[in-house]
Amino acid sequence: MTQGFSFSVLATDGSARQGEIFTPRGTIRTPAFMPVGTAATVKAMFPEDVHAAGADILLGNVYHLMLRPGAERIGRLGGLHQFMRWPYPILTDSGGFQVMSLAKLRKLDETGVTFQSHIDGSRHHLSPERSMEIQDLLGSDIQMQLDECVRLPCSESEAERAMRLSLRWAERSRKAFREQPGRAVFGIVQGGESKPLRVESAKALAGMDFHGIAVGGLAVGEPQHVMLDMLETTAPHLPESKPRYLMGVGSPDDLVEAVARGIDMFDCVMPTRAGRHGLAYTRHGRVTLRNACHADDPRPLDEASSCTAARIYSRAYLHHLVKAGEIFGMMLLTQANVAYYQELMAGLRAAIAAGCLTDFIAETRARWIEGESA
Amino acid sequence: MTQGFSFSVLATDGSARQGEIFTPRGTIRTPAFMPVGTAATVKAMFPEDVHAAGADILLGNVYHLMLRPGAERIGRLGGLHQFMRWPYPILTDSGGFQVMSLAKLRKLDETGVTFQSHIDGSRHHLSPERSMEIQDLLGSDIQMQLDECVRLPCSESEAERAMRLSLRWAERSRKAFREQPGRAVFGIVQGGESKPLRVESAKALAGMDFHGIAVGGLAVGEPQHVMLDMLETTAPHLPESKPRYLMGVGSPDDLVEAVARGIDMFDCVMPTRAGRHGLAYTRHGRVTLRNACHADDPRPLDEASSCTAARIYSRAYLHHLVKAGEIFGMMLLTQANVAYYQELMAGLRAAIAAGCLTDFIAETRARWIEGESA
Repeated sequence: MTQGFSFSVLATDGSARQGEIFTPRGTIRTPAFMPVGTAATVKAMFPEDVHAAGADILLGNVYHLMLRPGAERIGRLGGLHQFMRWPYPILTDSGGFQVMSLAKLRKLDETGVTFQSHIDGSRHHLSPERSMEIQDLLGSDIQMQLDECVRLPCSESEAERAMRLSLRWAERSRKAFREQPGRAVFGIVQGGESKPLRVESAKALAGMDFHGIAVGGLAVGEPQHVMLDMLETTAPHLPESKPRYLMGVGSPDDLVEAVARGIDMFDCVMPTRAGRHGLAYTRHGRVTLRNACHADDPRPLDEASSCTAARIYSRAYLHHLVKAGEIFGMMLLTQANVAYYQELMAGLRAAIAAGCLTDFIAETRARWIEGESA
Repeated sequence: MTQGFSFSVLATDGSARQGEIFTPRGTIRTPAFMPVGTAATVKAMFPEDVHAAGADILLGNVYHLMLRPGAERIGRLGGLHQFMRWPYPILTDSGGFQVMSLAKLRKLDETGVTFQSHIDGSRHHLSPERSMEIQDLLGSDIQMQLDECVRLPCSESEAERAMRLSLRWAERSRKAFREQPGRAVFGIVQGGESKPLRVESAKALAGMDFHGIAVGGLAVGEPQHVMLDMLETTAPHLPESKPRYLMGVGSPDDLVEAVARGIDMFDCVMPTRAGRHGLAYTRHGRVTLRNACHADDPRPLDEASSCTAARIYSRAYLHHLVKAGEIFGMMLLTQANVAYYQELMAGLRAAIAAGCLTDFIAETRARWIEGESA
C-alpha cells in the first residue's frame, strides 16, 4: 500500500464488511456512498451541506472536467479540492465510461479512445496515461484506471475483448499513476455477464499493485439479479485487505444487496438526479412529490430525519415547489436524498458492526414497502 | 397606527431617513431592501441564508400565490410564513401589477380585474376586497392596496383615470383590510409622469388611515431621471411619520438615489434574477461571470464581503459554473447579490446615521465605476 493511504476492516457480518479508509484528507467510513460531483459541483448543493449530510468523499468525473473547465486549468487553480471548496477526499473516475455514454464519434483502439466533445464538438484523445495525468492534475485522492465498459447484454466475445483490453490498460494505468503520499489508484474488474471472464479479470487485478479494486460494467442495463450474481462470483477473488468499489450503483435496494455481498464503496447520480426531478428517497420508501396527493399534506418527508430539508418543510410545500419548477425544490430534495443515502449507509455500518445486518435489511425493506403502499 | 406596528425615524441626512419599523415578527431596519420571494421562495436560496444576508423582510406575490398553490390552501397550512419557513416579516403586493404584466385576457372595470392564469388559463377575478382577503389568508404583515399600474409613457388622461381608480380602490382596500395587532396596510401613489397627478394622489392617500405609503407605477419603462423627478415631487406630500416604499426598484444606483430622496423601503427581482443569469453585483460594480476574462481568475468576487459565496469561491469557479449552467452557480450568485444589496442598505443606514450620506454615495459610486472599467 502507498504511504498515508490504508484500509482497515473493523467488523464483518456474513460477506459484509465495515471498515475505514484513511487518507490525509479524511477518513472514509465504509460501506461508503459517494455523491457525484460531475462538473465540480454536487448539483444544487453546497459542499458543506454534502459533508454535513455524512458524506466523507465525493466523486468527480474526468470526462466532464477535462472538457470544461479543463484539467490543466483546474491544476493551475490549485486542484479540484480547492476549485470546488471540498477539502475532503475525492475519487475520480477515468473518463472511459462517460466517453462511451456521452461523447460523439468515438473511436477506440489499443492506445485509447478518440472522441468529440458533446459540448462543443472538439476532438480529444484519452489514453490510460492521459487519464492518470488528468487525475493527477485534478489532485484526486483515489484515481481509477482507464477501462472499457460495454453495455449489457453483449456477446461473450465482445465482453472478453473489452475485459482483456481493460487489463492491459490496467497495467499501463498503474504504471502511469504518479505515486504520492496518501494517493491511491484502483483497478476495475470487467467481463460482462460472464462468470469465467469476471473471475479471470478479478484474479489478474488482484495480482497487480492496486490500492483497491472496483467492479465496473454493472448497472448498465442488466436485471438486478444478474448484477448480484456477478458480485457473488467476483467478490471471493478480490483481496480481502483492499476496498471494493461497485461503480455507478445504485438504488437503495441495490446498495443493501451489494453491501451484503462485500462491497465497500458506491457512487451514483440517483439521489441527486431524483432530487432535481421531484422524487424523494426516504426511510419510508420513494415519494413522488409531484403527485396531487401531497398538495395539502402538512407532514414533512420524514420527521425523524437528520436532514433539515426532510424534517422542516411540509410535503405540501415541496409539492408546490416541484410543480412550480422552483430551484429551491431541487435544492431541498437533493439535500434530503443525499442525507437519506448517507443515513442508510450509516445504518448498514452500524448493523454490520453489531452483527445484525440481516435484521436491519429486513426492517429497512419492510419500511420501504409499507411507506410506498400507504 | 395599528397596535404592534410602528415606525420610528432615528436619523435624517438631507431628505434621507434612517429608521426602524417594529412588528411582532421582527424589526425592519430602514432604508430596507426586500428580496422577492415570488412563489413562496426567494429563488435558489435557503430562507435562513436570506436572513443571514441581512434581510429583515421579504416580499411575496399575491398573483403567483393565488394561482399556485392557492391562498386558501396556504391559509389552511398555517399561512405563508409557516409554509415557506420564514418567521420574519413579509410584505405582500396586491396582485395588480402582475395581473397587468403576466396574465392573459385581462379585463379591468370598476369592480376589479378579471383575467386568465398564465399557468393553466383558469379565470379569476381580483377586486380590492379579494386582494385583501388573500393577503389576510397568507398572513402578510404588510399588505398593499389593489391599484392599477400603467406602463410609461402613457397619456395624461390614461394616467389620471388609473390614478383616480387606484384612489377609489385605496378606500375600498383600507376598508376591507382586516385589522389585527401588528398588521399594516399601505396605500399606493399613482399618476404616471404627471407631477400634478402624483401630488394629488399623494395628498389623497396621506389623508387616509394607511400605515405606510408606497410609490407605484415607476421603474416601468421611464428613464431614471423621470423616476427621480417624480420622487422629488411626491415625497414632500407624504406623511413624515409613515414609511415610504418605492415599489419594484431597483438597481444599486436607483436605491442610492431614491434613499437620498427619502424612500425607506424597496423590493426588486434584480439581485435574484441577475444571480440566475451569471451577473454579480459587488462593491466593485457589476461582474458578468460568463465573460472569458474570468476563466483563470483565482480571486473571489469580493474578498471583503460578509457573504461566503462572494468571499470563498474563485471567479474562475463561478465562471465555470455559469458556463456549465450549473444550479450551484445560480445559488452562489443569488446569495452574493442578495448579500451585496443588504450590505449596500446597511452602508446607507450607517451613512445617514453618521450624517455623511453624500460622501458615502460618492465613494460607493466611484468604486463601482473603478471596478467596472478595470
